[in-house]
Amino acid sequence: MGEAGLAALGKPLNRGLYECIRLAILDGAMAPETRLPPSRDLAAELKVSRNTVVYAYEQLLAEGYVHARIGSGTFVAATAPDHALNSGHAGAAGNSQHAVPVLSERGRQLVAQAFASPVQWGAFMPGIPDVTRFPHRRYASIVSRLWRNPDPHMLSYAHGGGYPPLRQAIAEHLRVARSVRCEPEQIVVTEGIHQAIDLVSRLLGEPGATAWMEDPGYWGMRHVLQMNQINIVPLPVDEEGLCIPAAGTLPPPRFIFVTPSHQYPLGIVMSLARRRTLLEYARQHGAWIVEDDYDSEFRFAGLPIPSLQGLQPDAPVIYIGTFSKTLYPGLRLGYMVLPRALSASFQTGHAELYREGHLMTQAALAEFMQAGDYAAHIRRMRLLYGKRRALLASLIQRHLGEEWLDASGSNAGLHLVLRLPDNVNDVALAELALTRGVVVRPLSRYFSAHPAPSGLLLGFASVPEARIETAFLTLLQCLADVGCNIGH
Amino acid sequence: MGEAGLAALGKPLNRGLYECIRLAILDGAMAPETRLPPSRDLAAELKVSRNTVVYAYEQLLAEGYVHARIGSGTFVAATAPDHALNSGHAGAAGNSQHAVPVLSERGRQLVAQAFASPVQWGAFMPGIPDVTRFPHRRYASIVSRLWRNPDPHMLSYAHGGGYPPLRQAIAEHLRVARSVRCEPEQIVVTEGIHQAIDLVSRLLGEPGATAWMEDPGYWGMRHVLQMNQINIVPLPVDEEGLCIPAAGTLPPPRFIFVTPSHQYPLGIVMSLARRRTLLEYARQHGAWIVEDDYDSEFRFAGLPIPSLQGLQPDAPVIYIGTFSKTLYPGLRLGYMVLPRALSASFQTGHAELYREGHLMTQAALAEFMQAGDYAAHIRRMRLLYGKRRALLASLIQRHLGEEWLDASGSNAGLHLVLRLPDNVNDVALAELALTRGVVVRPLSRYFSAHPAPSGLLLGFASVPEARIETAFLTLLQCLADVGCNIGH
Repeated sequence: MGEAGLAALGKPLNRGLYECIRLAILDGAMAPETRLPPSRDLAAELKVSRNTVVYAYEQLLAEGYVHARIGSGTFVAATAPDHALNSGHAGAAGNSQHAVPVLSERGRQLVAQAFASPVQWGAFMPGIPDVTRFPHRRYASIVSRLWRNPDPHMLSYAHGGGYPPLRQAIAEHLRVARSVRCEPEQIVVTEGIHQAIDLVSRLLGEPGATAWMEDPGYWGMRHVLQMNQINIVPLPVDEEGLCIPAAGTLPPPRFIFVTPSHQYPLGIVMSLARRRTLLEYARQHGAWIVEDDYDSEFRFAGLPIPSLQGLQPDAPVIYIGTFSKTLYPGLRLGYMVLPRALSASFQTGHAELYREGHLMTQAALAEFMQAGDYAAHIRRMRLLYGKRRALLASLIQRHLGEEWLDASGSNAGLHLVLRLPDNVNDVALAELALTRGVVVRPLSRYFSAHPAPSGLLLGFASVPEARIETAFLTLLQCLADVGCNIGH
Repeated sequence: MGEAGLAALGKPLNRGLYECIRLAILDGAMAPETRLPPSRDLAAELKVSRNTVVYAYEQLLAEGYVHARIGSGTFVAATAPDHALNSGHAGAAGNSQHAVPVLSERGRQLVAQAFASPVQWGAFMPGIPDVTRFPHRRYASIVSRLWRNPDPHMLSYAHGGGYPPLRQAIAEHLRVARSVRCEPEQIVVTEGIHQAIDLVSRLLGEPGATAWMEDPGYWGMRHVLQMNQINIVPLPVDEEGLCIPAAGTLPPPRFIFVTPSHQYPLGIVMSLARRRTLLEYARQHGAWIVEDDYDSEFRFAGLPIPSLQGLQPDAPVIYIGTFSKTLYPGLRLGYMVLPRALSASFQTGHAELYREGHLMTQAALAEFMQAGDYAAHIRRMRLLYGKRRALLASLIQRHLGEEWLDASGSNAGLHLVLRLPDNVNDVALAELALTRGVVVRPLSRYFSAHPAPSGLLLGFASVPEARIETAFLTLLQCLADVGCNIGH
């Protein structure tokens, strides 16, 4: 343990000395109860200051590598594990579970069913807005001004459902644009749809509770519900939306998850009659409707469809939405509108489970909304996406035929559904397309029921017009290459 | 439905007409199967363009308020709920569950045990760093530059555990500062400690699995585990850290959650012997150790304590940390270091459950770390907090006596523990102090075992020196006012 050894470590000497002794103890080179040389002697031997040695000894002491006995010196501690604790379990070491790490059953299921795409940008990734059109200079100037002199409260944990001016701005937007009945107090700002579903299912659902879900539906919602031990009952959708089972055929669920404005992923608008039936059913059976209004801002003909939540006062509806489609997904901001009687519990539960923060981001968004930039951006994007949708639809009609476009979709949203002949494996087709630089999502993976229809979700919103045609032609070639008859 | 009525709505006429008809249908004023006037006639009657009427009719049609019969006109749809569905359940309406919204048992428990403070800033809020010292100009200039020309991938969903340069920077920091054995591929960037615990307990723990937890311990960890149906076995801590039960007294757990560098909230450093025992126990019994290294950067004497994870190669340890204490809590960024065999599953599971994003924030932080600003900030704060800790400790010694300072705490962290006589109700004392503008947290609430010791957590890191004395004197007065004998 001479100077050469210490210098070789290339570290400040005090750290080097500490490290040398520590490693010697761990390796067993310095046995328990070995007495360390007095600090004065060691300092002289190593030609370092005594403080350097004292510092190293103190550190070793603090970490339990050595112990001091008053009047007799410093000794190596017994750091070996206490084998007595493990008596009777000696045989277990051989088949340690760590040799093959084992996920829990819920973890295994989640990983096995994983469907989030590693590729999140490019034609025709569905559900992604054109983030290049996000007015980032304007947004960055707001962010920059907020950072000039930030209030410390804005950098701490938050509490109470989010930054109040943002909740105010969201409430105003939802009242005007979505006919949602709400006050800012009813809003909890979330990290997005996933967190909202997580919170709803835990705070209102016992493990083993039942949720009705549209089939096809959003895979992410299924994952979150399964993780929370909510049993999913998939129900088909028809041209009016979710098919509510006839009385007596199914026990009433705790939750009914729906996308009434624009069924995900087929695009059906739930009829008014179905909406009213659903509300009455939920009221009578004590079920909670969770209305996922993920992209309803983008209707290219007619007015946006008013929300289910706003159809009746005090509807048994929890309304959830996101800024992922209107601004950009990476922002990770969404919101839930709660019935008044639940909002305090949800604010508390949200703070406990997730510890809130992000107030600087929330303040920037609040200002962006209050100044009218948010509404203006949505209007601009609606025009842009409408054009792109029309272009993609016309390509499909021209090259494949009208009947390939799923008929149930309304003129809205960020993607189109292309129906494929049932003998086409849409999963394999999507994999092939990806190797040629075109991202599409197989429709069959959105279904629980089997056999699931074959098809593709084609996102058009993020694709520049010039790219839409070339990417579509690549996709056509893929279709031909998997043996699909595309003549008409 | 004349012009006057439409004008009164104060909306664009087409929306007005749509609204008028919609409300008339909802109210029943226009009965099902009522025929709407031909669009040409209504346009003439209202002196509006025919397009205006057609537009309103189309919107009503899209939303299901009316239906069209070819050749015979447009008719009000039957929008009333289908009562046939509810036959046999008529009596249920009277005791609808929505009269008294009922949380789930897990939700009720969470809300009842809520302990996140609505006040997150001010003397002596524990666990909060001095966010006013965060180099916000420097950070904002990085953010601002990144926003000048953002890559669209940075605004989309992320996938794969976080922004690679940030994972690289975190790995380097942890290797040097915390002796963690890791490569960037083993890191998953999280929203903070809560999300890390959530993911670990779900991916590795079956519902009903057992976790050992230090008692006292972090309430937030308890909440997350309970939400995931993990059964908590609280174990006492002694002067060496978590007390590992003697062989055969308890069945082996799935998880062992520990804070070895700085026990939360008492501040004990786990001894080396205990660390090695713990590692060997976990290996033999297939348990996962979760090492929560929440504030270990702040040691005011000696070197930081190396991590438990780095003590042995391939230790059965999942290491978790956060930027909440080193930068600011509202940032909501943390990290987990996974054993190699688990990292791919965790990256997938993380993306599926939470949908990742925040890449702009992650890129800003990566640059902040790479440029050395992060390490420099920690060094500056270590000096500052060390001074503040010494000041608060000297006030306690002067006004109350050495014995009031909890003896187990090492010279580290962001808070001190003040021990109170057992007859002092620390919860009531904290409430009283809050009314006088001083935030403290009652020690008893961190314990599961009863009766719990009485005490207060006093955070010093965020309190300017000038404020420490005045706030402490206010606290002394509160102590006196609850009848505590503070003479010595």
